[in-house]
Amino acid sequence: METRERIISTGAEIIHRKGFNNTGIKEILDAVGVPKGSFYFYFKNKEDFGLQVVDHFNSQFEGMTGEILEDTSRPPLARLQALFRWFMDFFTSTSFTCGCPVGNLSQEMADLSPAFREKLQEAIDKMADIFSGVLREAREAGEIPADLDVRETAYFIIAGWHGAIIRMKVMKNMAPLENHYRFIFDHLLKN
Amino acid sequence: METRERIISTGAEIIHRKGFNNTGIKEILDAVGVPKGSFYFYFKNKEDFGLQVVDHFNSQFEGMTGEILEDTSRPPLARLQALFRWFMDFFTSTSFTCGCPVGNLSQEMADLSPAFREKLQEAIDKMADIFSGVLREAREAGEIPADLDVRETAYFIIAGWHGAIIRMKVMKNMAPLENHYRFIFDHLLKN
Repeated sequence: METRERIISTGAEIIHRKGFNNTGIKEILDAVGVPKGSFYFYFKNKEDFGLQVVDHFNSQFEGMTGEILEDTSRPPLARLQALFRWFMDFFTSTSFTCGCPVGNLSQEMADLSPAFREKLQEAIDKMADIFSGVLREAREAGEIPADLDVRETAYFIIAGWHGAIIRMKVMKNMAPLENHYRFIFDHLLKN
Repeated sequence: METRERIISTGAEIIHRKGFNNTGIKEILDAVGVPKGSFYFYFKNKEDFGLQVVDHFNSQFEGMTGEILEDTSRPPLARLQALFRWFMDFFTSTSFTCGCPVGNLSQEMADLSPAFREKLQEAIDKMADIFSGVLREAREAGEIPADLDVRETAYFIIAGWHGAIIRMKVMKNMAPLENHYRFIFDHLLKN
């Protein structure tokens, strides 16, 4: 991997765990094992670096969701359920820590940096695109109520998920994510 | 107001805006106009101070919600709706910034401090108690579906709200909170 990518992926891991303001550039460079000059060769400043970290999180999210949601061997609603189950397994494997990097950075940075705000707006809209797509397929297949606005439903599902993850971090168990899953699939999307 | 309370309420405002790790003790003391020694007279360390700030946010929340939710001149569901409308006006008045302090600190501190985690767990459970209470009244009055588990419903409503606030901070408009209101009152709680 190139130095720039190593700085981004290591930085992303630390930021995911500790937050953006709570992570120092030096800490990242020490973890990667490169001198300080490298950082300013690749990034204008810490904010510029942070924006590229958001892009990195976005690509990860798209890659991962794409694999599950585009698997047309399963009906659309089952794909969406599989995606949430995948996330639940993932958070179990990380002992219910860290949470959603885009949700975290939105909360932390939206008021502090207009550039972050714009970048995170794109990231959340991208998430909504992804969820809307599979919800539209599910609606066309008659699997969910015909009167649901798929985009607004996508935003609602994402919001509930972000909030459930917040409580998951506090409870350190699966109950908040199970609660979200149940209300979304047994109530909201129930035909 | 006593010095200790002034440090807590000023600190709470700054932390609400900037986050806990991003706020320095010196910054708070400068804003209050007291010397550093005062801080360590009242608080063991920054974490101890932060835990008392969570208590402060909790009391504010209880006071404010109590006023609206205990006004029995209105039916329970209308009280719950009025509470969310109150919050929507509040966030409009703050230009859609800051968000929920308990949600913010949960996201920021749950992985970093077991003492914070425990305190925030209490705070979220207290919120769920408050929402469960009015939902129970609404269920007894036949205003919401009889088969809803009020406590699980309270957690789901709070999660959706926390997530909607995250997107509100990013969008800087009311749309995410309107989305939450619509799905909760026109779908989930609809009889």
